[in-house]
Amino acid sequence: MNKVAIIMGSDSDYATMQHAEDILRDFGVDYSIEVVSAHRTPDRMYEFATHAHQDGVAIIIAGAGGAAHLPGMVSALTHLPVLGVPIESKALSGMDSLLSIVQMPAGVPTATFAIGKAGATNAALFAIQILSAHHPELLEKIRDYRRDRHDSAIKSSENVRRRFEDA
Amino acid sequence: MNKVAIIMGSDSDYATMQHAEDILRDFGVDYSIEVVSAHRTPDRMYEFATHAHQDGVAIIIAGAGGAAHLPGMVSALTHLPVLGVPIESKALSGMDSLLSIVQMPAGVPTATFAIGKAGATNAALFAIQILSAHHPELLEKIRDYRRDRHDSAIKSSENVRRRFEDA
Amino acid sequence: MNKVAIIMGSDSDYATMQHAEDILRDFGVDYSIEVVSAHRTPDRMYEFATHAHQDGVAIIIAGAGGAAHLPGMVSALTHLPVLGVPIESKALSGMDSLLSIVQMPAGVPTATFAIGKAGATNAALFAIQILSAHHPELLEKIRDYRRDRHDSAIKSSENVRRRFEDA
Amino acid sequence: MNKVAIIMGSDSDYATMQHAEDILRDFGVDYSIEVVSAHRTPDRMYEFATHAHQDGVAIIIAGAGGAAHLPGMVSALTHLPVLGVPIESKALSGMDSLLSIVQMPAGVPTATFAIGKAGATNAALFAIQILSAHHPELLEKIRDYRRDRHDSAIKSSENVRRRFEDA
Amino acid sequence: MNKVAIIMGSDSDYATMQHAEDILRDFGVDYSIEVVSAHRTPDRMYEFATHAHQDGVAIIIAGAGGAAHLPGMVSALTHLPVLGVPIESKALSGMDSLLSIVQMPAGVPTATFAIGKAGATNAALFAIQILSAHHPELLEKIRDYRRDRHDSAIKSSENVRRRFEDA
Amino acid sequence: MNKVAIIMGSDSDYATMQHAEDILRDFGVDYSIEVVSAHRTPDRMYEFATHAHQDGVAIIIAGAGGAAHLPGMVSALTHLPVLGVPIESKALSGMDSLLSIVQMPAGVPTATFAIGKAGATNAALFAIQILSAHHPELLEKIRDYRRDRHDSAIKSSENVRRRFEDA
Amino acid sequence: MNKVAIIMGSDSDYATMQHAEDILRDFGVDYSIEVVSAHRTPDRMYEFATHAHQDGVAIIIAGAGGAAHLPGMVSALTHLPVLGVPIESKALSGMDSLLSIVQMPAGVPTATFAIGKAGATNAALFAIQILSAHHPELLEKIRDYRRDRHDSAIKSSENVRRRFEDA
Amino acid sequence: MNKVAIIMGSDSDYATMQHAEDILRDFGVDYSIEVVSAHRTPDRMYEFATHAHQDGVAIIIAGAGGAAHLPGMVSALTHLPVLGVPIESKALSGMDSLLSIVQMPAGVPTATFAIGKAGATNAALFAIQILSAHHPELLEKIRDYRRDRHDSAIKSSENVRRRFEDA
Repeated sequence: MNKVAIIMGSDSDYATMQHAEDILRDFGVDYSIEVVSAHRTPDRMYEFATHAHQDGVAIIIAGAGGAAHLPGMVSALTHLPVLGVPIESKALSGMDSLLSIVQMPAGVPTATFAIGKAGATNAALFAIQILSAHHPELLEKIRDYRRDRHDSAIKSSENVRRRFEDA
Repeated sequence: MNKVAIIMGSDSDYATMQHAEDILRDFGVDYSIEVVSAHRTPDRMYEFATHAHQDGVAIIIAGAGGAAHLPGMVSALTHLPVLGVPIESKALSGMDSLLSIVQMPAGVPTATFAIGKAGATNAALFAIQILSAHHPELLEKIRDYRRDRHDSAIKSSENVRRRFEDA
Repeated sequence: MNKVAIIMGSDSDYATMQHAEDILRDFGVDYSIEVVSAHRTPDRMYEFATHAHQDGVAIIIAGAGGAAHLPGMVSALTHLPVLGVPIESKALSGMDSLLSIVQMPAGVPTATFAIGKAGATNAALFAIQILSAHHPELLEKIRDYRRDRHDSAIKSSENVRRRFEDA
Repeated sequence: MNKVAIIMGSDSDYATMQHAEDILRDFGVDYSIEVVSAHRTPDRMYEFATHAHQDGVAIIIAGAGGAAHLPGMVSALTHLPVLGVPIESKALSGMDSLLSIVQMPAGVPTATFAIGKAGATNAALFAIQILSAHHPELLEKIRDYRRDRHDSAIKSSENVRRRFEDA
Repeated sequence: MNKVAIIMGSDSDYATMQHAEDILRDFGVDYSIEVVSAHRTPDRMYEFATHAHQDGVAIIIAGAGGAAHLPGMVSALTHLPVLGVPIESKALSGMDSLLSIVQMPAGVPTATFAIGKAGATNAALFAIQILSAHHPELLEKIRDYRRDRHDSAIKSSENVRRRFEDA
Repeated sequence: MNKVAIIMGSDSDYATMQHAEDILRDFGVDYSIEVVSAHRTPDRMYEFATHAHQDGVAIIIAGAGGAAHLPGMVSALTHLPVLGVPIESKALSGMDSLLSIVQMPAGVPTATFAIGKAGATNAALFAIQILSAHHPELLEKIRDYRRDRHDSAIKSSENVRRRFEDA
Repeated sequence: MNKVAIIMGSDSDYATMQHAEDILRDFGVDYSIEVVSAHRTPDRMYEFATHAHQDGVAIIIAGAGGAAHLPGMVSALTHLPVLGVPIESKALSGMDSLLSIVQMPAGVPTATFAIGKAGATNAALFAIQILSAHHPELLEKIRDYRRDRHDSAIKSSENVRRRFEDA
Repeated sequence: MNKVAIIMGSDSDYATMQHAEDILRDFGVDYSIEVVSAHRTPDRMYEFATHAHQDGVAIIIAGAGGAAHLPGMVSALTHLPVLGVPIESKALSGMDSLLSIVQMPAGVPTATFAIGKAGATNAALFAIQILSAHHPELLEKIRDYRRDRHDSAIKSSENVRRRFEDA
């Protein structure tokens, strides 16, 4: 199985992107993680994006904030699926990041997920869902993961009920 | 190769979603297309989403507008990758559709694309990029498609230049 | 008198939804409260919504945040009145929650209230106003509640005046 | 059965509010309709709101645009359920109307629906859902209405499919 | 000289509105201050607004947050100039308050100022500017106030310069 | 009675500002009207603003769109009351105009009205309300104007009722 | 004098960017114009940006819409001043374009101008202002241009005045 | 080499604008810094803007927040390039500042940068990029600065990788 590459525009984005990393590690998916800045290291971004396929990367998860160009530019440089994660920005709460990533013109798709932690988690899960088409063991793990979340929702319901019964 | 299923909340969404259909047809990818309304036919949505895998669907493209629940609800009911397309809504220009689709909670990913036609086109291209991992002939077609667009950009540049030289 | 069911997408929503619970308890209205997640427990949501009527539920109050699909999906599955409460979300302050709940398409109404605590309180009060049509004792309590708030507004006015007279 | 009162801030709002009227007429629900302007006829609004109950009104549907004060002010003057419909405004597309109606403070609930035609339709359907608790014949009609919409969604799906099969 | 009436929807608005009070006191303008809630005490609001003129009020400053109906409703009930101050709301930062106050329909003007403290300060200064047309002593004070602010701007410039010279 | 000066940033703003002019003419208030551009004729703006008082101007109505600096800059240059009208801009529908006018810092008030025609109408009415404090004949006209609008609201209500009775 | 390069992401942007061209031609500034798409021709963008300086380009004006990455990416690849013009996009009116261009992270500046035609015109004027520091003849033309606009503002004022005198 | 003038509307803006100062000092560019308030000291702003050129200023960096008129007004008063920095405002997070600065009408350009610290840093870097056209030593420093940032991005990538290898 080829690996998932997590890239991000700055190491400050790692606080968000580690949630993608956590998921990939928990599911036992091979991955790499690095800072690839569209603006500070455009050469490296070109290098990364144009060689990702031959470097054994199957899917790219790219997090970026503000005028977030990394996911879209990488999408333009590779035919691999690129999953964009809008980082929550300071002044505009990630609305700028979201629009910079999702509003790509026809022809160069970037799959976009929610602003912040939820988006990072979901990008990783989505990568696993893609890979699961040819990796039945991942499919099994997805089902377990969902079953756990299903059960924890039920359990949390009991807690909420108990809280009000105790009151 | 398994097929791509295009679904949409209403037949009025077809004006947008046909751009996804056009791409899939041009690339020779097997697909189905139907109206599956989360709000008018929730039973059918359940049926569709929970059986999609065994019905030979590999990827789902779901378009919806306003309080756009279809892509996220289908995501909750299947482990297949779901690609959401926010339809441009009347009053709020699709900002409501976009936020209703992209802001999914951690655990249930929906890959989101641009509002309107560009999003529909890109969702289909993204589906093809996913499939191309195991279908080299699709990879070839993606490269052709991109080369064509690359060349047309160059040609359009010549037109713009000519316009001003003629002026 | 049939009961009011409070549901919410996650137990973290309880910090907001308890304000609905407080009102119902203060007014002596029978109610239930549970976590019903559209995304984590869609089967349970179907079960809940399609059986609510026969389970003696008269009105449903549903709180959800982000891509908030719970209120609208429950509305699609029952003819009971559904009152939606947009939970204040982290990045977008509940604007995503609000639009995901209020912008329902024609045919499937969800009554929407303010983002956060005020919305939870008001959804409960609104449920009581509905019930009061056939429960004069509730009407009496609504009048008392409003009279108290009327009087406290007057009293707070005196405090504001005193503050400046003392200054 | 008591009637539903449709009010609106201006006769130009009628283009939107007639969709509420259409629903009530189709369902055979008794209703009244009039222009009650919070800003031009505040006395009349007081009169209307404080007497609605004894005038046999069970539910009030109030449409208003821009700085839309009518639904909230009527809510403050009666314990009857008030359903607010944000009219699509010229410059801000109804975002001002929506926020002016939905963001009511705790204590004075106004049930809010979508901007424009969908909101007007849904407010009327919601009123009928409330009334149906004590009017089984309305419940039957709601079920018919939903079944029709369910069927038309299925039929539209066939049309979409046919379009592409013919192509 | 007739007085300026400061009203606000809730005593929690006083933290903002005291900045209006401070200005009026500093300029020696007679004023009253009270909580008049459009939603909790609509009768009192009517009473206040319809009698303000004969009670010797010349100008009304009204602060309100969220679905902020107080300034506009008072405007509808009196021909006195009403100055609206949008209180910064929790979820939407006062954007709801601003739109609810400023987007009044033609015919019922409400003069609107900035969200929060600056708006409260400016509403009071604006009231004084209006009064100064017939009170030359106020005009003199306005000129002093502006001169002070002019000078403090110049002085703060020196501080900024010094900071960098010291560095 | 001193006059009201209507100024605007560009003659294309006249389509909006003529609604202010119409009101002033209808009420028989002396006024002047001219284009004073903060950006194209800053010298003239200074001249205008600093001499307005001695030129017999009592109140200034200033319309501007986009980065709308005219109302605020004139406010900084005169102690006369300045009423700002945000012109509806092309791309951002006047939201830029509104924020550029209303969000003035503490110390330099600009009274702001609704975006577009309603704002222009209301700025003129507000000017008349200010002037009416010392011109009882204007107060009388305001009462007539409001009575007319009150009556037309009632009449429009009859029309709406008739429409549905005829149906 | 080195030339100004106008680039844009698509030939459909030319309807906007020609306003930059018009200004440069009117001022007699040497310029080039071409389509350089960050997403369709990333190689060409690299080539263009990294060679612009040695190709005799002094300033780059870059127009782009939606997820507008061209101006920022070019800024990352050259030390020449890059002036970004947000093209008005269909669904979101250019708000996406504006945020994608202006919200650049510290270290890679892109000078941003207004959405649409005004922005294109101003980017060209700004380029000329930069060049005028070492080209006194351009400074003279800027002064003429401003004087013309000053005079036309005055003339338009006369027209507005005449319109109302004739009325 | 002529100097860069940093101006700002208030000394509270210095917390943001010092990041511009830091850059200019680090690059050894001569500069001045002062508070020039469009609203509190309009005379000083005129004086500053109309004399800047003859005072040896080559480029002006102007920071302002809320209804941010300073950058645009200075642009109207000088042909020097003006770089606007939107200060992050309290209620609206700088969206008001951004729109007030960037949405300038055709004819009076203001180059706009990101909201807050990033914008201040970039305005200074942009000024240096302009100056570098005639100051090769600055060009060298820009290249060093970018190389440092390039290298630090690479180093931060190693840190991110190490973090996950250690885990």
